[in-house]
Amino acid sequence: MSTEPLYYRSATELAGLLRAREISAIEVMKAFLGRIEEVNPKLNSIVTLMPESAALALAEEADRKLAAGDPAGILHGLPTAVKDLNKVKGFPTSYGTRAFAEAAPETEDALFVKRLRSAGALVIGKTNTPSFGVGTLAFNEVHGVTRNPWDLALHAGGSSGGGAAVAAGMLPIADGGDSGGSIRYPSSFCNTVGLRTSPGRVPFEAVGDGWTPHVVLGPMARSSQDAGLLLAAMAGASDVAPIGLAEDPAIFLTLADVDLSDVRIAWSKDAGGLPVSPEMRAAYAGARARLESLGCTIDDVELDLSTADRAWEAIEMFGFYTDAPALVHSRPDLFRPDYVRNIRQGAATDPAELAFATRERTAIFQRTAALLHDYDVFVTPATPVTAPPAEVEWVAEIDGTVFDRYFLWQRMACRLTMTAHPILVTPGGFTERGLPFGLQMVGRMRGEHALLSLGHAIETATGWAAMRPTGI
Amino acid sequence: MSTEPLYYRSATELAGLLRAREISAIEVMKAFLGRIEEVNPKLNSIVTLMPESAALALAEEADRKLAAGDPAGILHGLPTAVKDLNKVKGFPTSYGTRAFAEAAPETEDALFVKRLRSAGALVIGKTNTPSFGVGTLAFNEVHGVTRNPWDLALHAGGSSGGGAAVAAGMLPIADGGDSGGSIRYPSSFCNTVGLRTSPGRVPFEAVGDGWTPHVVLGPMARSSQDAGLLLAAMAGASDVAPIGLAEDPAIFLTLADVDLSDVRIAWSKDAGGLPVSPEMRAAYAGARARLESLGCTIDDVELDLSTADRAWEAIEMFGFYTDAPALVHSRPDLFRPDYVRNIRQGAATDPAELAFATRERTAIFQRTAALLHDYDVFVTPATPVTAPPAEVEWVAEIDGTVFDRYFLWQRMACRLTMTAHPILVTPGGFTERGLPFGLQMVGRMRGEHALLSLGHAIETATGWAAMRPTGI
Repeated sequence: MSTEPLYYRSATELAGLLRAREISAIEVMKAFLGRIEEVNPKLNSIVTLMPESAALALAEEADRKLAAGDPAGILHGLPTAVKDLNKVKGFPTSYGTRAFAEAAPETEDALFVKRLRSAGALVIGKTNTPSFGVGTLAFNEVHGVTRNPWDLALHAGGSSGGGAAVAAGMLPIADGGDSGGSIRYPSSFCNTVGLRTSPGRVPFEAVGDGWTPHVVLGPMARSSQDAGLLLAAMAGASDVAPIGLAEDPAIFLTLADVDLSDVRIAWSKDAGGLPVSPEMRAAYAGARARLESLGCTIDDVELDLSTADRAWEAIEMFGFYTDAPALVHSRPDLFRPDYVRNIRQGAATDPAELAFATRERTAIFQRTAALLHDYDVFVTPATPVTAPPAEVEWVAEIDGTVFDRYFLWQRMACRLTMTAHPILVTPGGFTERGLPFGLQMVGRMRGEHALLSLGHAIETATGWAAMRPTGI
Repeated sequence: MSTEPLYYRSATELAGLLRAREISAIEVMKAFLGRIEEVNPKLNSIVTLMPESAALALAEEADRKLAAGDPAGILHGLPTAVKDLNKVKGFPTSYGTRAFAEAAPETEDALFVKRLRSAGALVIGKTNTPSFGVGTLAFNEVHGVTRNPWDLALHAGGSSGGGAAVAAGMLPIADGGDSGGSIRYPSSFCNTVGLRTSPGRVPFEAVGDGWTPHVVLGPMARSSQDAGLLLAAMAGASDVAPIGLAEDPAIFLTLADVDLSDVRIAWSKDAGGLPVSPEMRAAYAGARARLESLGCTIDDVELDLSTADRAWEAIEMFGFYTDAPALVHSRPDLFRPDYVRNIRQGAATDPAELAFATRERTAIFQRTAALLHDYDVFVTPATPVTAPPAEVEWVAEIDGTVFDRYFLWQRMACRLTMTAHPILVTPGGFTERGLPFGLQMVGRMRGEHALLSLGHAIETATGWAAMRPTGI
């Protein structure tokens, strides 16, 4: 058993203790509420929190039901909070946007929230997001900026702003969504684990095109094992989403033992020539040396992603347009300018560009699948830089390359989105300045179990994921 | 055991006899080659056939391998031919198009052809298709028209022109592909079984957007059981196609026993108001009475498909454009005008229309899934008319409604394509004129096993599928 404070114990350990009634949901809830009270004012990761009495009542009910003999779900008694793009009954959904700041509380849960609850999780609030998930930094006009537990002067990353809450011990697990790094960037900045799932693994209520692999949901946690625990609750085919993987989600509860000396890694230093900061380059090379010393076979390999940026942009912008709420057309002034610009760009999409993008997405999928015949994973840095200062809206320059739009510094993630394969970010160690960063590992299609098992082996062998932030 | 001639025995029975070495592949091949020689000159369903000596050599090799102790695949010794849109090593692929009439023999098999061969099937030729699969009648400038074994004056239907070969006992099983009825219409016209599969069930080498449920491949056979046999060989996730269902394809080898008195059917007389010929209306009502007499519970139910036609057209045309070969832009004169027009329409797609279409496709999927909570299947006629005269390029009028483009009479199929659910066509009996027609049954997502099991029960109880064409 861990000697860490309760709020830093693994979700898996806590869930086991709760199910065995060696600890009560009330105790667990009090530990997390205490931690939230202590550090959330500095971090601003949980932007809506239910009153303490209501949270304790949820925990009491969980304890009562278990005592009465009700079966304990896999997340029994674990508190969590939901990204503020997703609907939770009783909470307003702000979408991080002024137009919805005063929205009425939802009357229904999103599908995955229902699943979390039915697995026994206690939903106590909402986590931050930039307006409509635009960009990989969590800040907005409604709730402000989410700060990094490793250094309060820095961003925690986004769009899934719950990464900071997980890193700081305010939540054991949290959900994220990702089309251009929104699970991966915060995981890299906060030293947490984030999984961009295979399309169809975690179904959600599509409002636009349900047949796209572009946006996916996935777990964020402090270890691959905990990510697997959360995934086991989130996963499974559903009627609300046409792409569905029917595999039993319970497989993610038990990871495989991976012998690192059997692992073959295709190693890319910059995902095909993207700018990477010198600090990150050095740290990433250090991670490679460490993995080699642990027995991994690592080859320098590049995947042809030469069309990925152009294809990603066409698909991303067209997706924003397809999904746009009516209000954005009549009252664009109520929305973030980047979001409005995306929608306008999407509306003006040249059909030739969209045809190109979908063709290239298919080709990149096929190339990735072929590469992963020879390798277990294709690895790049999860981010080209460490967490940027909390004042910026995006990173405008990396290693001499200047960017004039918010998403250009996200290309380390966007390029790999176009593989449409599952992608795990697991801690890669620390830079010379002591800031964390992640390894971005693309695994085989529908291969989340193998990816999480590999992540678990790396985390166990390196100890990187067990490091706790010292900035708070 | 059946008393029918060898070439009309079920594929399942033949495969069993072949595996048990109670019959040789040579005997089977001779029976089918004899039947082909007898009726194909009238039907023109198999448009390319290997020399007799080569076909017999394939069969001899199959016999030799089995005798030597090689394991027999599930299609061991069964002849088949492949739709001429798909690549078969050693055969040219004409695409039913003058531009490719003199193409060189392919050097590679399509994925599903590889799978058929590795299951033991003997690929002896190619089956007809309209140019690039445009429309649901099999005719083209290269190979001419495929005629209906129930009446040689009529079309056999398409685009999967192998339906006629299956119906007439020239092949035990054949492949088809379907975006707007290309498996379903020929099945209805020829009294055969055709399965439009769930997206991802039968992967294929996408050249355009791999993330669309629009075009799917599936089996054509003389019974649901035989369709299951062929599906067991075709199915299974692959690296070439991003949407993939990982379920073990062997499940389709053994169908479930279905008690028809447990079956709940949502019955639509015309898929939401499509024109249907009086002949077909009467026959379809007769099918309902028969199914009710067999114990099925049947309710009149309409699914809201009001946006399906518009969405189908946008997606179909954009798909033609996305997949178009370069040659069609430089030498449109070498291609069928309808095909060229489709591509030009696709190239001019308004992004707003495409956004509308993808949103509606998602909504129709969700409505269909919801309906199938309460019913086992949603049923419509498979075709609005029986097989049309072999001289027409499309049906230009049904029950007073006039059509000015080739696909408008296909809407009975196109509308249900937009559900993105699996769809089985099984024989529905015969019209007053003695012409066959099919029932179009939409089943639950990824529910092909249940659909085929239901088809099998209906076929067994009614005997409709066992009726043989008398027109040849």
